[in-house]
Amino acid sequence: MQTNSSVFLGDKFYNREHLNFILFDVLKAETITQYDYFSDHTKETVEMYLDATDQFSKEYLFPHLVEMDRVQPELVDGRIRVHRVHRDIMRIGGENGWISILASKEVGGMQMPSVFSTASSYIMGAANYSGCVFMGLTMGAAHLIEAFADKKYHDLYLPKMFAGEWQGTMALTEPGAGSSLSDVVTTAEKQDDGTYKIVGQKIFISCGDSDAVDNVVHLLLARVKGAPAGTKGISMFIVPRERMKEDGTLEHNDVTSIGVYHKMGYKGAPIAHLSFGENNDCRGWLVGEENKGLSYMFQMMNEARISVGLHATSISSAAYYASLKYANERLQGRNIAEKNPEMPQIPIIQHADVKRMLLFQKTFIDGALCLELQCAYYADLARVETGEAQEKYHLMLELLTPVAKSYPAEMSNLSTSTAIQIFGGYGFTKDFIAEQYYRETRIHTIHEGTTAIHGLDLLGRKVMMKGGKAVMLLMQEVMGDIAKAKQHDNTKAQAVALEKKLGQLQELSMHLMGVAQKEGVEAYLSDATLYLELFGVLVMGWQWIKMANTCNENGNIDEQFKGSKFLCFNYYFEYELPKAEALLQRLKSTNRVTVGIDSTLID
Amino acid sequence: MQTNSSVFLGDKFYNREHLNFILFDVLKAETITQYDYFSDHTKETVEMYLDATDQFSKEYLFPHLVEMDRVQPELVDGRIRVHRVHRDIMRIGGENGWISILASKEVGGMQMPSVFSTASSYIMGAANYSGCVFMGLTMGAAHLIEAFADKKYHDLYLPKMFAGEWQGTMALTEPGAGSSLSDVVTTAEKQDDGTYKIVGQKIFISCGDSDAVDNVVHLLLARVKGAPAGTKGISMFIVPRERMKEDGTLEHNDVTSIGVYHKMGYKGAPIAHLSFGENNDCRGWLVGEENKGLSYMFQMMNEARISVGLHATSISSAAYYASLKYANERLQGRNIAEKNPEMPQIPIIQHADVKRMLLFQKTFIDGALCLELQCAYYADLARVETGEAQEKYHLMLELLTPVAKSYPAEMSNLSTSTAIQIFGGYGFTKDFIAEQYYRETRIHTIHEGTTAIHGLDLLGRKVMMKGGKAVMLLMQEVMGDIAKAKQHDNTKAQAVALEKKLGQLQELSMHLMGVAQKEGVEAYLSDATLYLELFGVLVMGWQWIKMANTCNENGNIDEQFKGSKFLCFNYYFEYELPKAEALLQRLKSTNRVTVGIDSTLID
Repeated sequence: MQTNSSVFLGDKFYNREHLNFILFDVLKAETITQYDYFSDHTKETVEMYLDATDQFSKEYLFPHLVEMDRVQPELVDGRIRVHRVHRDIMRIGGENGWISILASKEVGGMQMPSVFSTASSYIMGAANYSGCVFMGLTMGAAHLIEAFADKKYHDLYLPKMFAGEWQGTMALTEPGAGSSLSDVVTTAEKQDDGTYKIVGQKIFISCGDSDAVDNVVHLLLARVKGAPAGTKGISMFIVPRERMKEDGTLEHNDVTSIGVYHKMGYKGAPIAHLSFGENNDCRGWLVGEENKGLSYMFQMMNEARISVGLHATSISSAAYYASLKYANERLQGRNIAEKNPEMPQIPIIQHADVKRMLLFQKTFIDGALCLELQCAYYADLARVETGEAQEKYHLMLELLTPVAKSYPAEMSNLSTSTAIQIFGGYGFTKDFIAEQYYRETRIHTIHEGTTAIHGLDLLGRKVMMKGGKAVMLLMQEVMGDIAKAKQHDNTKAQAVALEKKLGQLQELSMHLMGVAQKEGVEAYLSDATLYLELFGVLVMGWQWIKMANTCNENGNIDEQFKGSKFLCFNYYFEYELPKAEALLQRLKSTNRVTVGIDSTLID
Repeated sequence: MQTNSSVFLGDKFYNREHLNFILFDVLKAETITQYDYFSDHTKETVEMYLDATDQFSKEYLFPHLVEMDRVQPELVDGRIRVHRVHRDIMRIGGENGWISILASKEVGGMQMPSVFSTASSYIMGAANYSGCVFMGLTMGAAHLIEAFADKKYHDLYLPKMFAGEWQGTMALTEPGAGSSLSDVVTTAEKQDDGTYKIVGQKIFISCGDSDAVDNVVHLLLARVKGAPAGTKGISMFIVPRERMKEDGTLEHNDVTSIGVYHKMGYKGAPIAHLSFGENNDCRGWLVGEENKGLSYMFQMMNEARISVGLHATSISSAAYYASLKYANERLQGRNIAEKNPEMPQIPIIQHADVKRMLLFQKTFIDGALCLELQCAYYADLARVETGEAQEKYHLMLELLTPVAKSYPAEMSNLSTSTAIQIFGGYGFTKDFIAEQYYRETRIHTIHEGTTAIHGLDLLGRKVMMKGGKAVMLLMQEVMGDIAKAKQHDNTKAQAVALEKKLGQLQELSMHLMGVAQKEGVEAYLSDATLYLELFGVLVMGWQWIKMANTCNENGNIDEQFKGSKFLCFNYYFEYELPKAEALLQRLKSTNRVTVGIDSTLID
C-alpha cells in the first residue's frame, strides 16, 4: 500500500506525556469514574484505550496522511469514491467499540466519559484529521438518534452505525442557508404511513456519501409543509441513503450525490452536495416532535463544536512536532554574538526567534487542549451531577463552548503558519508536511459556525443567559485558581496580571450593556468577534494558571517536565496575555466604524 | 486556450483610482520627472504605461491565474516545462520595453522612475503573481549586470534579456546556506582565460530554468578558492545556462536542472534546484571584483525586498476585491435587530463583522501600497538628488526596507485568510479563488529573507546605522505629517495617538540600547521580530495620516472618495493601532523567556 512516501513528517504528532498530565494531574479526570454512570471504567482501562488509539493512529491514520491529500475523493457513477483505508478505519472503529464508546449501555455503548473519548479523538485527529471524522460524525449522528428518536429507530440504525457499517451525518446547510440556518427550505410532507416525503438540497455535508460504508444515515433539518417561518419551523428527520424494506433488505431512498467539493485541504474527507427526492421518493422519519429540530441539533452542537476546536489543536500539534524535530536537526547560522564564520553552524532551535516560534505553537496547543478536555469533563459532570452542581457545569460549558470552538480554530491558522516558517523555504514545498497542515486546518474557523457566529453566540446569548449566571460561575472557578497561584512566588505576578485583566473584562461587559441600551443591539454586537478573542486570551491564561498550580502542588512531577511547563507559562504571560490590552482598547471605544455606514464606501 | 474556467474570481483585482490617488495626490510622484534623469517622462506617458499594463494584465495574466495553479511546472528531459503563456509574457514584455524600463538609456533602457514601474508591477502581481515574476527577476539580474559588471557583458547579455529572450535569476541559496548566506560553498576556480570554473548546487532558484526562454542568466554567488570564510569571501558571477561561443552560437554551460519544487502555491513560477559543473565544465564570469559579491547583491536587495512586500499586497488586493464582490452579492441572514424571519435576506456586506473583515483587508492593502510606492519614490529621489538630500532618502529607504518587505508579507497571510472567511464554506473550496491567493502569498514571509532576518536587519543594523540618523530623519518626516494632521478636526485625535506611540517607540529603543549594554546582543535582538511588527504598525499609521492629510488639503478629491478613505483611516486607528500597545508591553519587559534557556525544555 502506498503511504506518505518521501514527505518529511517528523516522528511524532502529539505528546502523550503532556496529554496525560492534563487528564490525570490537572483535571484529575479519573475521579469521574466514581460516579455510577461511568463506574465501568478506571484510570487503567482508560490508559489502555488511549494506548489502543495511539497504536491504531500510527498504523491506520498517520501513514495515509499525505496520500489522502494527493488523491482526493471523486464522484464516480453517482457514488463518492474515497481512500480505501476508510473502510478499514470504520471496521476497526466498530470492532473495537470506539464508535459506540460514548453511547449508553442500553443501546450497546460503553458509557465512556467524554473527557477520555475526547482525548482519544485528539490523538486520531493529530494523526490524520480526515481519517478520523468518519467515526466522529457517526458518533454524533448516533447520539442524536439515541437522545431524541423513538426507541424503534435505535434498533434499526444504531447497531449498524456502531459496527462501522453505516455512516452518520448532520445535514443542515443549504445553498441559501449557511450561517442563517433559519432559512432552511428543504421540505417534508407527512404521508399517511407516518413517514415524510423529503425534497431539497443540502451542501457541504461532511462524509455525506462514500463507498467506505454500506449506507449513510443523514440527520437532516427540513421544514414540514405549513410550519412557521424561521427557526421555529424546523424539524429533524432520519433520512438514510438506503431505506430498509419490510423484509430487511435495502432499497434506494432517492438520495443522490450530485457533487463532491474539491477543497484546499482536509481532502481525505468527502464533502458532498446532496439532492433529496429528485424522483419524489425520498422518505424521512421524524425525530422527536415537529418544529423542534433545531433545538435537538443545538443540544448536540456543543460536542461538534468542541470537536472542531479540539481538531484545530490536534492538527497544530502535528505541525508543531514536525517543526520541532526540524528545528533540532537543521543547522543554520551561529549565535548572534558569534563573529567567527568558521565556527560550525548550530541547530536553529538555538536561535531566540525560533524558540519564540516554537513556544508560540506549544503554548497554544497545550493551553487549548487543556480547555477542550476541561469542556468535555464539564459535559461529563453535567451528565452525572444533579441540581445546582449540574447547572453549574452545564452553564459553564455553554459559556465556554464558543470560545473552545473558535479560539483554537483561529489560532491554529497562525500556529501551523508558524510551523511553516520554521521550515523556511522547505516549508512552502510539498516535500515537507507543514504546508498540508496549514491547508487542512483552515476549515476550522468556518465549519460548525464561523467565528463571527460564535462571537454573536458568546456576547449575544451566553454572557447574558440567566442574568449572567454562567459568567459569574466561571469567574468563581477562575478566581479560585488565581487565589492558589498567588500563594507561590513563581506564579504570583502572572495571577495578579490575569486578575487585573478579568476585572477589565467585567468593566467592559458592563460598558457594553450600556451600549446595548443606548445604541441598540447592532452596536452592542458589532465587535463580538473581538470580544470572543479577548475572552479566549483570558481563558487561555486561566488554563496556564491551572497547569502551573498543578506543577506547584503535585510533588510527583519531575523537574524537567515542570521546567517545560513553566517555560510555556512564562511565555504565555509575557507574549500572549498583552494582546488582551489591544482588544480591550478597541472594545471600549465608542467610535463605531462598522455600524450605520454606507457600505458603498467600502470599495 | 483553457483559462480560469468556472472558478469565482470576481471582476477586479486592484483599484486604479486608489493607485492613482497614492501616486499623484499623496506622493505627487510626477514631480520626479522634473529631474533630468527622468525628464523623458510625464504624468501622461506614465498613465499610458499603466493603461498598457492594465490591458496586458487582463489579457495575458489574469486569465491564466487558475490554470497556472492546476498545471504546475515539471522537469521533463532536463528542462523545466512551464505554462506556455510565459513565452508570450516575456516576448510582449520585451517588445513593449517593460523589461528594460528601469535601465539607463545608455544600455537601451527607458529610465522610468521606479515609483511608476513599481505601480505597474503591482498591477501585474495582482493579476497573476506567478505570471509577472519572470520579467521582474530578469529586470533585477539585468540591473546587477548594468551596475557592477564590465561593459563588455552589457553588450553580451542585456539586449537578449531586455528582449525577453533570455531570463535572469539571482542564484544565492544552497542546501546549507539559506538564512545564513555567509555559508555559501559553491566554488569558483580562476582559469587562465580569466573565466572561473563553477562547481556547486543552488536551490530555490526562482525561474531558475524554463522552456519559456532561450537561455537563463544566473547571477550567482560563489567562493573563489582560497577566499576568506564568511561574507567577506563571496564573489558574484554571471553564469549562463548556455554560453556564447566565439562564433556567436550557444553551447551548453554545464548547468543542470536536477529538480523543480512542488509548492503549496505560487505554482506558475518554476523554482529550481540547479547543479553547476557536474561535468567540470561550467564557466562563470566575474562581476566586479572578487569577494565583493555580497555587497553587490545587497545593493540590489532593496528592490527585490520591496517587490516582495509589494506583491504580498497585490495578491491581497486581488483576494480583497473577490471577497468584496461576493459580500455585495451573497444574501445571508438579516440585520441582527430584525426579528422577522419572513423578511428577505440581506447582502452580507451589511453585517458589521463582514464590514470589519473587508476594512481590515482594504486598510492594510491601501496603507501597504502607499508604503511600497513611497519606498520606490525614495529610491528615485536618492538616485537624482545629491548631498544631504540624497543621503536622507537613501537612509530612510534603508530603514524602511525591512518593514516594507515584512509587514505586508505577514499581513497578507491574515488578509487573504480574511477573504476566505468572507466566502464562508465556499472559501475553502477550489470553486472560489480566495484559497489560491491564501496559498500563493504564504511564500512572502520566507523568500528574500524571512521575517526574523528582517527583524534583525532593522533592530540590529538599520536603527543604529550612522548613530541613529535614519530614524531621526524618518521621525522628522513623520512628525511633519502629524503636525499637518493636528490642524484638522477629523485627523487631530489620530495624529495625537500616533505621536504618543512614536514617543513610546523611542523610549523603547533607548531601553533596548540599555539591554544591549547590560545583557548583550542576543538579549537585545531576541524579540527583533516583534520590534519589526511594532515599527510596521506605526509606519502604517503614518501612511494613513498622509492619505488623510491629502484628502483634507486637496480640493479636487470627490466626497465619496474621501468618505472611503476616511472610513479606512478611522478603521486603522480604532482597530489596528491599538495592537502597538501589546507589542510595546512585551518589548519593554525584561523577562527574557527565549534567551539562555535549555532548548530541551521545548518538547
